Amino acid sequence: MIYFDNAATTWPKPPEVMDAMRHCLEEAGANPGRSGHKLSLAAGKLVDNTRQAIADLCNISDPDRVIFTLNATDALNMAILGIVETGDHIITSSMEHNSVTRPLHCLGSKIEVTKIPCDRQGLINVEDLSKAIRHNTKAVVITHASNVTGTIMPIKEIGELVRDAGKIFIVDAAQTAGILDIDVEEMKIDLLAMPGHKGLMGPTGTGVLYVGERAAFLKPFRMGGTGSKSAVAGQPDVLPEKYESGTLNAVGIAGLGAGVDFIKRTGLQRIRGHENRLTRAFIEGASKIHGLKIFGPPNDEARAPVVSFLIEGKDTAALGGALDSWYDIACRAGLHCAPDAHKTLGTFETKLVRFSFSYFNKIEEVDYALKCLRDLKERDIPVVNGSGCSC
Amino acid sequence: MIYFDNAATTWPKPPEVMDAMRHCLEEAGANPGRSGHKLSLAAGKLVDNTRQAIADLCNISDPDRVIFTLNATDALNMAILGIVETGDHIITSSMEHNSVTRPLHCLGSKIEVTKIPCDRQGLINVEDLSKAIRHNTKAVVITHASNVTGTIMPIKEIGELVRDAGKIFIVDAAQTAGILDIDVEEMKIDLLAMPGHKGLMGPTGTGVLYVGERAAFLKPFRMGGTGSKSAVAGQPDVLPEKYESGTLNAVGIAGLGAGVDFIKRTGLQRIRGHENRLTRAFIEGASKIHGLKIFGPPNDEARAPVVSFLIEGKDTAALGGALDSWYDIACRAGLHCAPDAHKTLGTFETKLVRFSFSYFNKIEEVDYALKCLRDLKERDIPVVNGSGCSC
Repeated sequence: MIYFDNAATTWPKPPEVMDAMRHCLEEAGANPGRSGHKLSLAAGKLVDNTRQAIADLCNISDPDRVIFTLNATDALNMAILGIVETGDHIITSSMEHNSVTRPLHCLGSKIEVTKIPCDRQGLINVEDLSKAIRHNTKAVVITHASNVTGTIMPIKEIGELVRDAGKIFIVDAAQTAGILDIDVEEMKIDLLAMPGHKGLMGPTGTGVLYVGERAAFLKPFRMGGTGSKSAVAGQPDVLPEKYESGTLNAVGIAGLGAGVDFIKRTGLQRIRGHENRLTRAFIEGASKIHGLKIFGPPNDEARAPVVSFLIEGKDTAALGGALDSWYDIACRAGLHCAPDAHKTLGTFETKLVRFSFSYFNKIEEVDYALKCLRDLKERDIPVVNGSGCSC
Repeated sequence: MIYFDNAATTWPKPPEVMDAMRHCLEEAGANPGRSGHKLSLAAGKLVDNTRQAIADLCNISDPDRVIFTLNATDALNMAILGIVETGDHIITSSMEHNSVTRPLHCLGSKIEVTKIPCDRQGLINVEDLSKAIRHNTKAVVITHASNVTGTIMPIKEIGELVRDAGKIFIVDAAQTAGILDIDVEEMKIDLLAMPGHKGLMGPTGTGVLYVGERAAFLKPFRMGGTGSKSAVAGQPDVLPEKYESGTLNAVGIAGLGAGVDFIKRTGLQRIRGHENRLTRAFIEGASKIHGLKIFGPPNDEARAPVVSFLIEGKDTAALGGALDSWYDIACRAGLHCAPDAHKTLGTFETKLVRFSFSYFNKIEEVDYALKCLRDLKERDIPVVNGSGCSC
């Protein structure tokens, strides 16, 4: 099987990830930060090691500002719902995932939302964003790279703009953590949401929210046992416990630590280089297929390793289904939980097939996929209701 | 090492749990419910199997009412924060964990809270609870069994009372799921929160919220990508997706499924029988140690396999530390994230040492621990700041 669905979750993981999970479950399987005994302390040490590894990766000076969450969506909900107050204005883009648009939508008339329309390549215009900032703007929430087109947003430029305006900058790094360099200081990010199980190579059930000093007013999302200051009636004002109630996913976090170690050992540059080669090879090859239309930037440097496309005259869902069942290529066809992005691209009706690469994909897999697409183009693909398409 | 901290998280797990996690990560490591390809469908199948297993265990007729969460605290926050509206009255007990008391506390003056005082054994008086119900009472939130004394609450009786009054019944089964029989129909439970990693024998990073039909108005806690109905601006009104945004912890949920299968195969009665024997043996032996005071019901049948105690004249934290460092017995000394419970017992200042047993503990371990306690009673234990005590 060829797995080109790494934007949903990376697979396979480095073997060290499962080893670390097994070690944690079998050798340090107590509740971290809860009891004083050796097994609990061992679990706590594993969690803290991962906290430090992520802090190092993103230039976070205080590892206690690295908060572990269920997934990036959990982190984004914590960030968005934890900072807004009635009457606030929030700026976002037209390329966001539902993990940003739905929490904002559910706040209803409590807040005002400006969605900056992006261009047909999914890119935001920073000047448009600058003009949208008002006196009651609380925050700018933006994806680092689109999960549909891979389009990389000018995060550093936006960060400087937002900081100068005295607002809060929330970044969704679902498609970039472990793939592109992220520096919270240089990019002036106040709240950074990351999945643990995508580019960071950890298992599912892990996510991260970095809470910067300027976002210290962030309200806790989940209240409860923190293993410290239990006598306090409310949530203790201590990091990371303030935002980490209930038993942490120590086993998953240990696996995530091994994933981050793999990235550091391999080197972000090397990972990025390989993924760019795959992306470039695919774009070059696919561009030559008549009727195949690629969306997003033409240059691989301008995108995360994500490429969405359609073949004129072919049903997208059927195409995704055929890639899976006829050629054993796993990809994702549909709206990719990002209807706004598809409206921006003009593909809300047609939908798209998405290929997303990881460090473990090979150039031969791209070549084979291109061959399959050329083949598919000439074939009739039966449209089966719901086949291959997740919308 | 002897592990008597199973109320925090069970350890060890049945070996099938790690096997299931490895299988999921290596053989079905895609994102469940997101794409249409085989690997995603395989992950989805594993998740659904666990959903069905938990539904079977708790007599839940529709498995889609089993919602996967980060942990029980996450589930309790979803339940409590998702049902309350300004002006609501909530009834709870004086034996609750911070995972109940802190979300309620953080709602501040938005709601009214009545905490029914429990007796010195941690038991609630159902008549007191009945009298506390008002016209604006929205829900009763109560633990199935105390995490400090193990005291089992008369859940069925309370459930009938709450149902008759037309209110919502929220049960915290942190200490009972996989240990005591739970039947949501018979007990008339509307919202049931369970950890996956305690009695259910799954890994950390797993929790469950059962959402009954009468709680259909529950607001979603975490909004975002659901893999279905992506075009809808808000959260889709479909179960389980309405309450499950972002990538599920498929690896952990697969492990949880193996844990639940272990419980079913072994039989709740057999598990309960063994844990009762351990509890009874400990209570009987410890009662003979002069100066050792046990809290909670004297009868093992009236409690979950949790026993908290102190030794007069000995510092609780030091006792916990000595049990760990001198005798290699892992337990939890402190307030157990339940300050209200300790106030009820009159142990808020002294705190307590907690032993909590699982199916994998042996009667010989209880005998050895009793020997250690008899020994400890005669020794001077140095009080080291913070040693052994997690508060």
